Amino acid sequence: MLNPVTPTFTGHLRNLLPAAAFKDDSAAYLQEPRDRWTGQGLVVAPANTQEVAALVRACAKARVGVVPYAGGTGLVGGQIMGEGPAPVVLSLERMNRIRDVYPMENVLVCDAGVILADIQRAAEEIDRLFPLSLGSEGSARIGGLLSTNAGGVNVLRYGNARALCLGLEVVRPDGSIWHGLSRLRKDNTGYDLRHLMIGAEGTLGIITGAALKLSPQPFATGAAMLAVPSPAAALDLLALAGAQMGDTISAFEIIHRQGFDFLAEVGPEVRMPFADIPEWCVLIDVGLPAGLSPDAALEALFVAGHEKGLVSDGVIAQSVAQRQAFWHIRESIPIANRRIGSVSSHDISVPLSVIPDFIARGNAALADIGPFRINCFGHLGDGNLHYNVFPMPGRTRDDHEEQRGQIKQTVHDLVHALGGSVSAEHGVGRLKVDDLENYGDPAKLAMLRAVKDALDPLGIMNPGAVLRQRSE
Amino acid sequence: MLNPVTPTFTGHLRNLLPAAAFKDDSAAYLQEPRDRWTGQGLVVAPANTQEVAALVRACAKARVGVVPYAGGTGLVGGQIMGEGPAPVVLSLERMNRIRDVYPMENVLVCDAGVILADIQRAAEEIDRLFPLSLGSEGSARIGGLLSTNAGGVNVLRYGNARALCLGLEVVRPDGSIWHGLSRLRKDNTGYDLRHLMIGAEGTLGIITGAALKLSPQPFATGAAMLAVPSPAAALDLLALAGAQMGDTISAFEIIHRQGFDFLAEVGPEVRMPFADIPEWCVLIDVGLPAGLSPDAALEALFVAGHEKGLVSDGVIAQSVAQRQAFWHIRESIPIANRRIGSVSSHDISVPLSVIPDFIARGNAALADIGPFRINCFGHLGDGNLHYNVFPMPGRTRDDHEEQRGQIKQTVHDLVHALGGSVSAEHGVGRLKVDDLENYGDPAKLAMLRAVKDALDPLGIMNPGAVLRQRSE
Repeated sequence: MLNPVTPTFTGHLRNLLPAAAFKDDSAAYLQEPRDRWTGQGLVVAPANTQEVAALVRACAKARVGVVPYAGGTGLVGGQIMGEGPAPVVLSLERMNRIRDVYPMENVLVCDAGVILADIQRAAEEIDRLFPLSLGSEGSARIGGLLSTNAGGVNVLRYGNARALCLGLEVVRPDGSIWHGLSRLRKDNTGYDLRHLMIGAEGTLGIITGAALKLSPQPFATGAAMLAVPSPAAALDLLALAGAQMGDTISAFEIIHRQGFDFLAEVGPEVRMPFADIPEWCVLIDVGLPAGLSPDAALEALFVAGHEKGLVSDGVIAQSVAQRQAFWHIRESIPIANRRIGSVSSHDISVPLSVIPDFIARGNAALADIGPFRINCFGHLGDGNLHYNVFPMPGRTRDDHEEQRGQIKQTVHDLVHALGGSVSAEHGVGRLKVDDLENYGDPAKLAMLRAVKDALDPLGIMNPGAVLRQRSE
Repeated sequence: MLNPVTPTFTGHLRNLLPAAAFKDDSAAYLQEPRDRWTGQGLVVAPANTQEVAALVRACAKARVGVVPYAGGTGLVGGQIMGEGPAPVVLSLERMNRIRDVYPMENVLVCDAGVILADIQRAAEEIDRLFPLSLGSEGSARIGGLLSTNAGGVNVLRYGNARALCLGLEVVRPDGSIWHGLSRLRKDNTGYDLRHLMIGAEGTLGIITGAALKLSPQPFATGAAMLAVPSPAAALDLLALAGAQMGDTISAFEIIHRQGFDFLAEVGPEVRMPFADIPEWCVLIDVGLPAGLSPDAALEALFVAGHEKGLVSDGVIAQSVAQRQAFWHIRESIPIANRRIGSVSSHDISVPLSVIPDFIARGNAALADIGPFRINCFGHLGDGNLHYNVFPMPGRTRDDHEEQRGQIKQTVHDLVHALGGSVSAEHGVGRLKVDDLENYGDPAKLAMLRAVKDALDPLGIMNPGAVLRQRSE
């Protein structure tokens, strides 16, 4: 059993760490982006790895839980522990130093608390690209992004967060430090602990530093929004784009008309790319080497796609501003979604070829439950859809409180039956612990538990996230 | 303590599995490619995953070690257990079925015993690329390639073996089966067990099947061999190539003149690309999207490199045959090496920017030990060099038996001091267990041991590989 933070323990920590590590008002740390939970605990913000180690050592000794907190943008409650003995909430916000850049190696080494947008800028300054990109990049911190193996819009080309990390520095649950900040591209000396820590959501240790892999900047970039007759046509268009442009396609996003309708209804204000909004469209983004023109490449895709009946209408960005405007639409859809207020949101992935089947069967199954508005959009190129269910106009999510469980289970059962994942890029956190237990392969679950118990025998690291806290 | 295979146990296995699973002559399975060890044990070749599971269950019950054997091409003794109680050698050779291909998804699912070249061909048949490529591709099997996280010549662009795998099927040390053959690009439901198994060298379970990620075929490919004045110039040329061609560079290999001299001395016969062999040259391979010409791109690189003093001479392949001839040279060097017979071979990686320093300091330190021929070549773009030490003409490796330990330690100490890895792509096996203990970060070693003990509590899986067998 864990112990709660007590005034005595707090006093002990105040002796251990400088006063600057303690926050006066910690309310913001205990709120969840979608207001689903309220957290608890003592917020402490160490300034460096040694302070993190000292803090964790103290928690281990007192058997107090530690909840790592990076940007606070997670959507599955990994950073919010609402129940159980009050933990220490360990904020990384003061660990925001870019430690080194190695332009020749395409490597950047930084503290875990650096905000993603700051890393992107630091890479740009040396004419490199850090390709991780997602809606919350202005506040999400790299330690959290790695701990949740974040996805975003460039996974198709550059991979998810784990593909962009060469090395880690980690404070283990006993307070010892793993100095794994390797800048090597290849290192086959033992099990890959880096990949074990990435995506572990802070349950095996706390990432305090990372060596990140940068890429060359594409010589020229471009984007197009293309209206497609169906999700199946969108997939055929993706294959056609692959045949024509190889792996220069950075992003291939699908957007249902519902997203545009929500934007028109509640904002943010966007410039509509089509006079008549199609039921489905895709946003394709390309980054090309020298000698190729994005306009010409996208035009060629449009023409070939049109001939094959895969594209009915389209706009190719004529300027950087127009490309940004397209992406502004895409990034505004989650904001509109929150303003409408979903009954249930699903971050799912399925094998690419079954996407049309998933959408058709999902829509039909939900129609059997009742009338809803479904906003289906996301990273088609990765097989990752955000399949979110909203009330009809004039109703609110609260009106459907009792149907939420059924909706979620209907969608997740279908995803599971189709060989998919009920958490494609957001992680398990505390929201999907039941799902992992329900849908997880038994051998997998046994291995997860064995690894957790082996690396965090006291169970103090982010208690109750990913795996249920063991009762003793 | 483990038990040896006994006649009684063999009889039990013969009742459990069909006769076809037992080999008449098993000598070939017990030899190591460089003749450094001789193995022992009962060779069993199950036909499918269920038979693997039954075999492992029986071994677990009897506490008999299991040594997985794929293509037998490993260079660190991972597939050869020369000491300790005689194990079962579990050969994957009969599990050689390509189970499914999914062209739209760029996925191929196969048994773990399929030979790499057969996977490459199957991908080609559907106009896709499986980019893993290395010298032993005609005999290496995918289960072994994944278990050792193999590298090869295309890592720069496509990543190592782990980057090419979406899902795994694994028989665990208790004989249970993890059904993890996911075709998903994104799945954040719990710790990444796939990456834990990849590179674990069969010490945590046996990979029996894999879902592999294919890529679009490049529209056009090309290659050039360029003479460079130094390793530092080669690195500058790599950066220049990145600026000009983005991530369309598939391979960037460095070759020292010693390799050409060995080829001239002992073969295999190759056509020399230069009239005067330079001290250093690079082999660059590119795969371009439609609209770009490899010839023009490589010519532009040559011109720009020449202007900057980074390239002194060069040949751009004028045909598929010439490109293949370049690669024939590269792939023949390890064969020549074996014919000469190295005193000590080192598969090392260092951060890219310290490569020139490593070569200079390594050469100087070895000169202090005695006169040797050093053949330094390999995957410069990955910071991965094969830095191999050979006797002077007229002498043999046996003449230097007593210096081998000192040479190895000198090289490995330097690699470690420079932040590198003493096993970049070959793995730890049994050859480098000491190195891992000597150079490994203590927190890392503690985690490796904890994971091993948690997932293989009886210690039957590939005993003594990666980690020393525990005495009890």
